[in-house]
Amino acid sequence: MYFSKSLIPILKNNPSEAKIKSHKLMLRTGMIKQSSAGIYSWLPLGFKIMKKIEKIVREEQDSIGAQELLMPTIQSADIWKESGRYNDYGDEMLRIKDRQNREMLYGPTNEELITDIFKSSIKSYKSLPQLVYHIQWKFRDELRPRFGVMRCREFYMKDAYSFDLSDEDATFSYNKFFLSYLRTFKRLGLSAIPMAADTGPIGGNLSHEFVIIAETGESKVYTDKRILSLDFQDIKPEQKSLSDLRLNFDQYYAVTDEKFNQEEFDKKVKNENKLQTKGIEVGHIFYFGDKYSKSMDASVDYNGKKSYAKMGSYGIGVSRLVGALIEANYDDEKEIMKWPTSVVPYQCAIIPLIDKKDKSNLEKAEKIYKILDSYNIDTIIDDTEESIGSKTKKFNMIGIPNQIILGKKSTETEIEFKQFDNQTKTLKLNKVIDIIRKDLIN
Amino acid sequence: MYFSKSLIPILKNNPSEAKIKSHKLMLRTGMIKQSSAGIYSWLPLGFKIMKKIEKIVREEQDSIGAQELLMPTIQSADIWKESGRYNDYGDEMLRIKDRQNREMLYGPTNEELITDIFKSSIKSYKSLPQLVYHIQWKFRDELRPRFGVMRCREFYMKDAYSFDLSDEDATFSYNKFFLSYLRTFKRLGLSAIPMAADTGPIGGNLSHEFVIIAETGESKVYTDKRILSLDFQDIKPEQKSLSDLRLNFDQYYAVTDEKFNQEEFDKKVKNENKLQTKGIEVGHIFYFGDKYSKSMDASVDYNGKKSYAKMGSYGIGVSRLVGALIEANYDDEKEIMKWPTSVVPYQCAIIPLIDKKDKSNLEKAEKIYKILDSYNIDTIIDDTEESIGSKTKKFNMIGIPNQIILGKKSTETEIEFKQFDNQTKTLKLNKVIDIIRKDLIN
Repeated sequence: MYFSKSLIPILKNNPSEAKIKSHKLMLRTGMIKQSSAGIYSWLPLGFKIMKKIEKIVREEQDSIGAQELLMPTIQSADIWKESGRYNDYGDEMLRIKDRQNREMLYGPTNEELITDIFKSSIKSYKSLPQLVYHIQWKFRDELRPRFGVMRCREFYMKDAYSFDLSDEDATFSYNKFFLSYLRTFKRLGLSAIPMAADTGPIGGNLSHEFVIIAETGESKVYTDKRILSLDFQDIKPEQKSLSDLRLNFDQYYAVTDEKFNQEEFDKKVKNENKLQTKGIEVGHIFYFGDKYSKSMDASVDYNGKKSYAKMGSYGIGVSRLVGALIEANYDDEKEIMKWPTSVVPYQCAIIPLIDKKDKSNLEKAEKIYKILDSYNIDTIIDDTEESIGSKTKKFNMIGIPNQIILGKKSTETEIEFKQFDNQTKTLKLNKVIDIIRKDLIN
Repeated sequence: MYFSKSLIPILKNNPSEAKIKSHKLMLRTGMIKQSSAGIYSWLPLGFKIMKKIEKIVREEQDSIGAQELLMPTIQSADIWKESGRYNDYGDEMLRIKDRQNREMLYGPTNEELITDIFKSSIKSYKSLPQLVYHIQWKFRDELRPRFGVMRCREFYMKDAYSFDLSDEDATFSYNKFFLSYLRTFKRLGLSAIPMAADTGPIGGNLSHEFVIIAETGESKVYTDKRILSLDFQDIKPEQKSLSDLRLNFDQYYAVTDEKFNQEEFDKKVKNENKLQTKGIEVGHIFYFGDKYSKSMDASVDYNGKKSYAKMGSYGIGVSRLVGALIEANYDDEKEIMKWPTSVVPYQCAIIPLIDKKDKSNLEKAEKIYKILDSYNIDTIIDDTEESIGSKTKKFNMIGIPNQIILGKKSTETEIEFKQFDNQTKTLKLNKVIDIIRKDLIN
């Protein structure tokens, strides 16, 4: 890919309308473009990063045996009247009348629709548990959409739902998602803290939100810092080990300002372990028993008896995670964005010194591109007429960790190589490939 | 995956509300579930097939150098007023007012929005051509939605757009998509005929629709049957060879009833080459020059002169293709669905005879499952209590080409193997694996 042919419109300066790091960086590097208030197009750079996040989210849902499906964006108001939430939801719900004057809405969440699907599909307890998820656009008509993708109106979300026969089984399902969330965020290089949370309009009595630490976060976070070093890599998805995992996390105080209580904090956490900081919510899980299955009459046959399904729901904001990763990892003083390796948009940028009369650097860039490609290293060649200084600055912002500069210091056998603001080195291409690949494997 | 734990709700009989093959089969095998008129949820089986189609569509867009991005579903009415299409579009456009009383709409297509993105992103002719695409849900508020996913309201579509400096360059871009469409449909096992078409509400003066032959198709097709044997596998994506390819196809008469003229048909096609049949539209490409770029003032700088971008647009109905594949390949007498290998939902079904007292068949099934999995053969075990006859009938309908039956005829070393309605054979497992893998490679 040549930069001159890419649709990555870079702005010279930070856009004045943006107040937080992620919003600024995403507009400035052309990851997104606002199309109307709180609604964005994802341009190729932002889209590429979001797709990589989506893939990790998907793999971790698949790994606990959840089945993927896809519900539509537009729902009938009828099922929301059945569950009793149609009037509760307020102005945040985008209500629509179709040409036949039927009441429709753009789904802000999918408890009703999935309950309706379950009801018509699953008849016997033998088909339980059912763990299902979808990754779909949702809409919440925020009064004041702001902060770019962090509080927008049309957003991309993974929501999962579990259906079980008993509270005990349902807790097992809940804990599977609990583990999958820890793993998902870990793969994104984020330390997400599960915090006891209120259930809000979803309902139920058990809920955790997953909050990552970021100085620019919207919520205040109060926790015991030992929660950050708990290990979960080798946990087996079995009832006992998952239950132990939950206990292990839940023993530590961890709340946002919503649930904060100073007295409790002082009692439960020693001063030396206290951590007061700010955070961003990236996931939220709920257990609400038969709240929807009862009102919508979704039951299974259990040896001749009717049993309402015990349900939970589990959300991750996929589009929001792009912003959260930036809030957590962008150094806005140095203007350097360090993506986790798993979502980096390009692994390498080749920056030839462009001379209108002499095409040799560009030709060399193309040769190196082919070699890197043969090692599956995703690379972009910057063939624009900007200065090398301005190009390396741009790739620091976009977050391309490896930069090959083909200028005066590069010779026939050695090339100039730089990782962000580290000093440039003059190295053989083989050595550069080794460095990049080592990074990819880790 | 165990069938008992899957969300694949099979109906005993064809649903009475469905009139055409694809609608019947998709409801009967639980690929989709209607949530309201013309709006469907894609359950795991249908979703899996649609995702495989999407992957092929994506790869063929990438192969001609198109960049993927993603525009939102909800658009502002303003840009449609700018282009002059807001009033033209009629009741099929789902119009929405948000909480601030702003006029919004659910995008039925994206010419306006992509032109707006282009306008703010691309300044110089040096960044041309720009080929971009997205795969996104669209909405058309059909007066009478029917035929399942073939004429529904919320549908999944790949739409691409090209921006060029001159008519000649734009024709080159148009021809790239022309080739990529032929290849996409070929990989789906479909012979798609490109037909001269009217441009309708999109506008412009050059357009082809891609129509596949299916007896149940909605359009009448009149063509020269020699067009079906034209070869395009080795065409290079270069200006001259693509132009020759277009000429090669365009020389043959090929139209739907919309453009049919008996006199012309008789004149241009010898009787022995005439083919009159029915077809389904699966793709449509348009060239419309500066229709949108002029009205929306989207231009590039060309050596100091302002030049309006020459645009084309290119659509493939991804959700519709699931239905089209069924219309083209489902034998509703024998109740056998033969998916092209590239989109088959599972390559193999293992059907153990279930005996409550004797778990040995089920254990054997699990062993075989693991072995097939190690060869990357995607397999489902049917552990339900239905009869073997009813299970093989079900998998014929779903379209699982390879079926292993672990019943009376299977021994320690040999298993019963069946491909659809072919006779069962008793074979060693190694031999079965060879047969399945051979199929996968072809």
